Amino acid sequence: MNEKTISELAALVSGEVKGDGDVVIKRVADIKNANEGDIAFLEDLKFAEQAKISKASCLIVPKGFQVDVSSSLIETANAKLAFALIAKILHPPKKKIGSIHPAVIAESAKVDSTAFIGAHVCIGENSSVGANTQINSGAQIGDNVSIGDDCVIHPNVVIYDNVTIGSRVTLHAGVVIGADGFGYARDADAYHKFPQIGTVMIEDDVEIGANSCIDRGALGETRIGRGTKIDNLVQIAHNDQIGERVVIAALSGISGSATIEDDVVLAGQVGIADHTRIQKGAMIGAKSAVFTGKTIRSGVWCGIPVMPLEKYKKLNAQYRALTKMSEKIDELKEEIESLKEIILEHNLRHS
Amino acid sequence: MNEKTISELAALVSGEVKGDGDVVIKRVADIKNANEGDIAFLEDLKFAEQAKISKASCLIVPKGFQVDVSSSLIETANAKLAFALIAKILHPPKKKIGSIHPAVIAESAKVDSTAFIGAHVCIGENSSVGANTQINSGAQIGDNVSIGDDCVIHPNVVIYDNVTIGSRVTLHAGVVIGADGFGYARDADAYHKFPQIGTVMIEDDVEIGANSCIDRGALGETRIGRGTKIDNLVQIAHNDQIGERVVIAALSGISGSATIEDDVVLAGQVGIADHTRIQKGAMIGAKSAVFTGKTIRSGVWCGIPVMPLEKYKKLNAQYRALTKMSEKIDELKEEIESLKEIILEHNLRHS
Amino acid sequence: MNEKTISELAALVSGEVKGDGDVVIKRVADIKNANEGDIAFLEDLKFAEQAKISKASCLIVPKGFQVDVSSSLIETANAKLAFALIAKILHPPKKKIGSIHPAVIAESAKVDSTAFIGAHVCIGENSSVGANTQINSGAQIGDNVSIGDDCVIHPNVVIYDNVTIGSRVTLHAGVVIGADGFGYARDADAYHKFPQIGTVMIEDDVEIGANSCIDRGALGETRIGRGTKIDNLVQIAHNDQIGERVVIAALSGISGSATIEDDVVLAGQVGIADHTRIQKGAMIGAKSAVFTGKTIRSGVWCGIPVMPLEKYKKLNAQYRALTKMSEKIDELKEEIESLKEIILEHNLRHS
Repeated sequence: MNEKTISELAALVSGEVKGDGDVVIKRVADIKNANEGDIAFLEDLKFAEQAKISKASCLIVPKGFQVDVSSSLIETANAKLAFALIAKILHPPKKKIGSIHPAVIAESAKVDSTAFIGAHVCIGENSSVGANTQINSGAQIGDNVSIGDDCVIHPNVVIYDNVTIGSRVTLHAGVVIGADGFGYARDADAYHKFPQIGTVMIEDDVEIGANSCIDRGALGETRIGRGTKIDNLVQIAHNDQIGERVVIAALSGISGSATIEDDVVLAGQVGIADHTRIQKGAMIGAKSAVFTGKTIRSGVWCGIPVMPLEKYKKLNAQYRALTKMSEKIDELKEEIESLKEIILEHNLRHS
Repeated sequence: MNEKTISELAALVSGEVKGDGDVVIKRVADIKNANEGDIAFLEDLKFAEQAKISKASCLIVPKGFQVDVSSSLIETANAKLAFALIAKILHPPKKKIGSIHPAVIAESAKVDSTAFIGAHVCIGENSSVGANTQINSGAQIGDNVSIGDDCVIHPNVVIYDNVTIGSRVTLHAGVVIGADGFGYARDADAYHKFPQIGTVMIEDDVEIGANSCIDRGALGETRIGRGTKIDNLVQIAHNDQIGERVVIAALSGISGSATIEDDVVLAGQVGIADHTRIQKGAMIGAKSAVFTGKTIRSGVWCGIPVMPLEKYKKLNAQYRALTKMSEKIDELKEEIESLKEIILEHNLRHS
Repeated sequence: MNEKTISELAALVSGEVKGDGDVVIKRVADIKNANEGDIAFLEDLKFAEQAKISKASCLIVPKGFQVDVSSSLIETANAKLAFALIAKILHPPKKKIGSIHPAVIAESAKVDSTAFIGAHVCIGENSSVGANTQINSGAQIGDNVSIGDDCVIHPNVVIYDNVTIGSRVTLHAGVVIGADGFGYARDADAYHKFPQIGTVMIEDDVEIGANSCIDRGALGETRIGRGTKIDNLVQIAHNDQIGERVVIAALSGISGSATIEDDVVLAGQVGIADHTRIQKGAMIGAKSAVFTGKTIRSGVWCGIPVMPLEKYKKLNAQYRALTKMSEKIDELKEEIESLKEIILEHNLRHS
């Protein structure tokens, strides 16, 4: 664990110190549970009361913060982001470097001397592991796999043959990269596997959550773009093209040959069918579905299948008012009936 | 495998024996497939015909059972529960005690002498394993992990650093406890990890199904309360507070900072958004969703987003009758048109 | 990798050669990326332009293909199926035969001399592994497990005790077969496990995707029928009876005691409740749900709960037109009001 003074930390995030900049900060904490030596942050001025009673030695606050508190302050434009960057410094990931436990490493594999290889790891023929990368215990790496520098491959990850992984990639426990895509050709009696002999490319700075699966391309490549973050238990199918800085929440599934452009956000349990295109910056709400072959423009979308959020909200309200609508129709019917009676009466009188 | 007489088993469940109590029972079975030496149960009197032809040596039946059968009987208030309790006696979990296979155990770890440690297990620095606990083959246990007594950790489970697990906990194969929560702060170019340096607490008597994931708290703790049962492929996010005796079925996902109070039941593929509260005893139907920040009271709830079951059923019926509703509106329109014509005609006549 | 002439390949798929049959083919490829030595296929005549510019040495085309191209052709009734069958020949799965890495194999286990056993594998008491089967690194096989011939068990698969697996079965990485079903009996204070002491039977030619879970039967058997294909992250619960040639896409879940008959197709994220029956050949659309106890006939079904596709489409269109329907009702109301006024006026005049 590192320690820094408030001034050192403020400099890292281009923040301005209010109060004693020489106080030493040891760790980040929640504003409610923070104690001496801790730095916390205040995302919104509506939490100012918490700031007043916080025991944190330093608070990161939005610019223009005027509340009288006992902690030192770092004023900055984006307090949450500054907190995240400071946490990276105070809590660096555990270093495990330059040691190899009882593992089975092919003679043709190239493992950098600064890499950490945990116990019960396998590394296959012609695979390579870059500088400072950790392959933790029980991870199984196939043949012809390339893994870059500064990666953390957590325990029991499985990487199939011929997969390429960039630098600063984190794969959480149980992730499976490069299993066969789910494609078959059928004859009268049986399904025959469509060839699943393509590859997977995971670019730099990607993080993939526990037990998620990224299938290999059938003939081509499945790609996860730079800086994309994927949650736990997510399914990415064969030949999907996932852009840069995409965010995909837990239990979402993307069928084959979909294109998810840069900066898209998929909430939890979303389903994206095959041969779809989600355009740059679109956000798809939780549990929503995009049907086969559709293109979704930028904006916020919800529903099964998706529609613009505003329409979704309006229709949802109308759906919930269906009972009233039905009653209204019955009332109109009654009114018409009574009008008919009146008219019938008058007609008779006037006929 | 244990053997017991019918009288011994009846005493265990406060049941009353009808017939020969000295018959020896060797195993539990389904009423249809039971044979000599088996005990089966009859949950409902409507299955009385099956009881008549069953070859079971003993049947557990509800009180007041009057059907003439050849098997001995144990009469009890809750036949299914009695069957479950008797199965625990007749089919005790396989004991694996006091042996250590080729594993990598840190010198600073404390493993009870009665614990079973399977092959290819890792146990990290300062971790502890309690009495009679099984850590099965391929399980990877991090540093500073505490595991209580009488736990069964199935093969290839991964427990990250600093996790605490109570006693009599079962983790099925592939479970991941303590992976990083899914939280980032974004600047113009990239997502930066929000610190995920909290912990996970799994209390006593919890069971977690295969390949489920419980993320660590960002700064605080993710907690799974005593006696809670979680199915396969479930996602529990950072800082979730799951109460006691909660039941969560397969493929459900709970976003961060949600509170699920005691005795809640979530059916399959449910989605609970962040910062929600599901109050004590609520039941959420399959495939339903609770949206961000909502509080759900006790009762049965369904839909996306959820509503009370009765309302859900009524709206669903009205939804399915939308075609009729549309036709009814068209009919009303026609009737109005014909009224207008009549009125127009009469108006003209009277003008 | 194998090499074959075009004539040899055509004979394998009962196709007719147009052009030079003696050209040697080395690999399959996508029609767009194919080069010399590659064989590609054209599924539909609408892609004829791609055929004209393809550099493939051979194209598999539908019968009656009349486009003038430079590649040799194999004409056949089902081009995609022929491509799949040819890929099996040109790209046979990697053979790993007759070697045992540092693994822990019980003395009572019977492993065929042609089987491959990867590093860090465990095989339990009285288990058997058939001819040419691969148990890849990190896979954990329990006691009394039977695995047939020509299977590929990928890394870190877990098979619990007493499971039976046929021949030519592929289990992808992280699959868990035979974990306890999710069944409990409750008393006032706690859930007690309902006995989960049944088995799992996986029949011949089944393929199961990464991190999917097949639970054991409670008392009886969970069965996956011959030739069935299951995608990643799928949940199959205790006592499910899955027929032959069933296809189940990713993130779908089937609750306990369901029957899925032969040739059923479930799309992604489908939920099937307990004690249901999906009849032979039915197709259930993505994200759909079948509720407890229902029987679903052959045909295409969608929705929560499911309805026939045609009805689903019609209701969906009407749902999306709810705003218009509401406006229409308001218009009718206004018309009625103006009729009432007219009538009132006339009534007054005539009273």
